[in-house]
Amino acid sequence: MNHQASGLIGVDLGGTKIAVGLVENGTVKVKRRIETDAERGPEAIVADIAGLAKDLAAEYGTEVRALGIGVPGQVEAGTGLVKFAPNLRWSNVPVGEMLRHALGCAVSVTNDVRSIAYGEWTHGAAQGSQSVACVFVGTGIGGGLIIDGKLQTGAGGSSGEVGHMTIVTGGRKCTCPGKGCWEAYAGGWGIGERVRDAVAADPTLGKTLQELAEKEGEPLSAKHLDAAYHLGDPLAKRLVAETADYLAAGMVTLLNILNPEVLVLGGGVLEGIPELADLAIRQVQVQALQSAVSSVKIVRSSLGSDAGIIGSATLAFHEAGS
Amino acid sequence: MNHQASGLIGVDLGGTKIAVGLVENGTVKVKRRIETDAERGPEAIVADIAGLAKDLAAEYGTEVRALGIGVPGQVEAGTGLVKFAPNLRWSNVPVGEMLRHALGCAVSVTNDVRSIAYGEWTHGAAQGSQSVACVFVGTGIGGGLIIDGKLQTGAGGSSGEVGHMTIVTGGRKCTCPGKGCWEAYAGGWGIGERVRDAVAADPTLGKTLQELAEKEGEPLSAKHLDAAYHLGDPLAKRLVAETADYLAAGMVTLLNILNPEVLVLGGGVLEGIPELADLAIRQVQVQALQSAVSSVKIVRSSLGSDAGIIGSATLAFHEAGS
Repeated sequence: MNHQASGLIGVDLGGTKIAVGLVENGTVKVKRRIETDAERGPEAIVADIAGLAKDLAAEYGTEVRALGIGVPGQVEAGTGLVKFAPNLRWSNVPVGEMLRHALGCAVSVTNDVRSIAYGEWTHGAAQGSQSVACVFVGTGIGGGLIIDGKLQTGAGGSSGEVGHMTIVTGGRKCTCPGKGCWEAYAGGWGIGERVRDAVAADPTLGKTLQELAEKEGEPLSAKHLDAAYHLGDPLAKRLVAETADYLAAGMVTLLNILNPEVLVLGGGVLEGIPELADLAIRQVQVQALQSAVSSVKIVRSSLGSDAGIIGSATLAFHEAGS
Repeated sequence: MNHQASGLIGVDLGGTKIAVGLVENGTVKVKRRIETDAERGPEAIVADIAGLAKDLAAEYGTEVRALGIGVPGQVEAGTGLVKFAPNLRWSNVPVGEMLRHALGCAVSVTNDVRSIAYGEWTHGAAQGSQSVACVFVGTGIGGGLIIDGKLQTGAGGSSGEVGHMTIVTGGRKCTCPGKGCWEAYAGGWGIGERVRDAVAADPTLGKTLQELAEKEGEPLSAKHLDAAYHLGDPLAKRLVAETADYLAAGMVTLLNILNPEVLVLGGGVLEGIPELADLAIRQVQVQALQSAVSSVKIVRSSLGSDAGIIGSATLAFHEAGS
């Protein structure tokens, strides 16, 4: 096997876990996963990442030639400066510079969800398309836009923040300064709030949900909605139908405004309740503009948990021009 | 004066009026305006446009070298086929081909609002920017997106249909198949519906508005809201404030999703009640993501009623590569 061409590392830096992988031809050849432990500060985390990258490359008989990293926060386009990453408690951390210094190779820093979108575009569900809207429904709703064959970062590095489109004017308070944001209704945390509100409003109807949460000694969340829905609980069914309405609203906005070739849907919430995306897609097909619906393919993400590693590595590869 | 370089015609084809102008260096040198009279069918309208274009060019001592036309409907990217233009009652009219045949020159066909956006980008309020979102609030809400220095048409020709983003999930019925669209709340027709609903719900409070409409023998509309607002009417004030909320919701979505350098606001409704945009902008500054707000300039459109002529002519000029 010829390993000369590789030495390409992708990093998916999360608030709790760091995944580092060696990528060749869009597949992860070898990877490691460690705890983030954000308390330790950026220097220790960068040292861990650099160490793992070197180990993986050595293990694979090569050296680190380029590294891409996806960070859960706002990245300054071009410089690799992480302006703000709340889950890591980072602000203005020059992670690009730090990794370049540690590794002596080309380093590319991107928002984590944009990295995943890049992976799905280059090696996953949206291969070969020129315009793609990616939506990942996890705790929040993140996204990434590929327009005219280019991953968009926007004027201030926040293009693709689809979770913060307004779908209910004057609606639920978001974690951002806005109100009525998509993720405040259809993201994991927003679903959790809606479930807790619904159970509090009608404890009799909410009995199954409440019991599921109590059995696990946890506050009610989207996870219990998932479980109750699959038990056939009537309130859970209603909440899932409403969530599908909210999901559809944001999908309609993306299709009507951007008219992309492909809409990629992924993320833990949609994997937990697969019917949710089906219900939402059915509504989108009725409610979006015909010109937008007839020209889009709506697909599920296909790279799974490796998408961030593959995407950030591929972005580094393309940016390094190698 | 040397007219050799020109011969560039821009056409703004509306449901009631057709404006044809000769454009040089981004300014309209001479123009004509005639009735559309859609009843006559596309052949007669195309003949009128071709005749006016020739007349204007002759008057200016040149001939028609390229013509751009903005059409109120859905245009197939590349071909100049108008797939659907409800106000003209056109479907599948090959207006590009017809005009090329009549004039023997390069012809470029675009959606009318996209033409206006192109004008504002190349010669108006958003000159020199690489990413621009244009929003025009008239009877409906139209728009145009410039991303990475390119006017977007989308996979099916409907990119920039900002009026049909969802701002109230499950909300007011739109003229499109959707519900809760931006223009159903903040476009001229949507404002009119909301005004009529508010007056019907509380005729005492709605007295001033009702009287304004009756005096003119017209159904209540956004125009009367404008008049009543400037008389200090309390219901009109409340409706204007609510309209600003709805306007802000859509602006927040555009900024958070696309993170453009410039947001251009224009159109008759915003010109009628200038405070409306001011109120909305103030909210956007509080509610949008800081990264999006801090990197955008929000400006008013600057080309007025010539924007469509200038934009379509400039697009034809650029497409002809002349």
